[in-house]
Amino acid sequence: MSDEVEREDAAPAVPPSHRDLLERPLYACLATVREDGAPLANPMWFLWEPGSGVLLFTHTTTRHNYRNVRREPRVAVLISDPEEPLRYLQVHGRVEAITPDPTGAFHEQLQLRYHGRVGEVGEREARVVITVRPTRIVTGQGIRERRHARRAAAARTGTVAPAGGTV
Amino acid sequence: MSDEVEREDAAPAVPPSHRDLLERPLYACLATVREDGAPLANPMWFLWEPGSGVLLFTHTTTRHNYRNVRREPRVAVLISDPEEPLRYLQVHGRVEAITPDPTGAFHEQLQLRYHGRVGEVGEREARVVITVRPTRIVTGQGIRERRHARRAAAARTGTVAPAGGTV
Repeated sequence: MSDEVEREDAAPAVPPSHRDLLERPLYACLATVREDGAPLANPMWFLWEPGSGVLLFTHTTTRHNYRNVRREPRVAVLISDPEEPLRYLQVHGRVEAITPDPTGAFHEQLQLRYHGRVGEVGEREARVVITVRPTRIVTGQGIRERRHARRAAAARTGTVAPAGGTV
Repeated sequence: MSDEVEREDAAPAVPPSHRDLLERPLYACLATVREDGAPLANPMWFLWEPGSGVLLFTHTTTRHNYRNVRREPRVAVLISDPEEPLRYLQVHGRVEAITPDPTGAFHEQLQLRYHGRVGEVGEREARVVITVRPTRIVTGQGIRERRHARRAAAARTGTVAPAGGTV
């Protein structure tokens, strides 16, 4: 995993180089584990709270991922730069709260973030906010960053460093 | 899951409406399960073989996902339309083969698919091809398809159907 940078501590920091991936209205790929032990992956809206460091998701009590995280609170969240998908943020975390959102206020906040306007709230009565506390953050470097790092390493050591990473 | 269509059979079909997501050089989010039972999610290159119906990934024997799928062959693959991320294909599958790729030939094939040219093969000596056999395919409908379906349902029943789906 030569192009990944791992951090593991009580409150893992978001590297400034990848902070935009949390700020922009991108879709996250949320991975959970099903009751039968197989993984599940879904595209999700999210909101990052820089103060508390948590990720918030809107969800409903009728869906697979709700049942999954009630049983197995550990999740993985992948947020890739659409312009350069190997520049990504991989957040390992734990669901620390599931809060009812019966007015749909949080869903409306995410509608604004993602669509710039507020419309209908689907399944309002079943709406919840899922709070994920990051436990570990891994960043993937984009092609340009990789080239730059390889050149720098080659200049330091006089050798050609191999490419690596996810693909 | 009102906006999802589930299919479960021996060889799940790819709906023509979502076939382009397998044909285009998009990045897949591959979810696996770690030894400790937590999920993992990574962006991945892939190749779909329409004849056999399998998904092929290039990977190496030195990475987390390799160890994960050797122990737990069930995976989930999410491929979203970058222009409309809620239009997605969620493939549940099983790793049915891991084949060495010591010449890097398959990696080069994917370089061509994704970058239009062939360059260095990273970690060539550790390269493998991971073959995933889909066991179930779920599609997510984009906003336009959802609106259309809601209008059609409303016209049929004389009522307004609620929005739904992943977000």
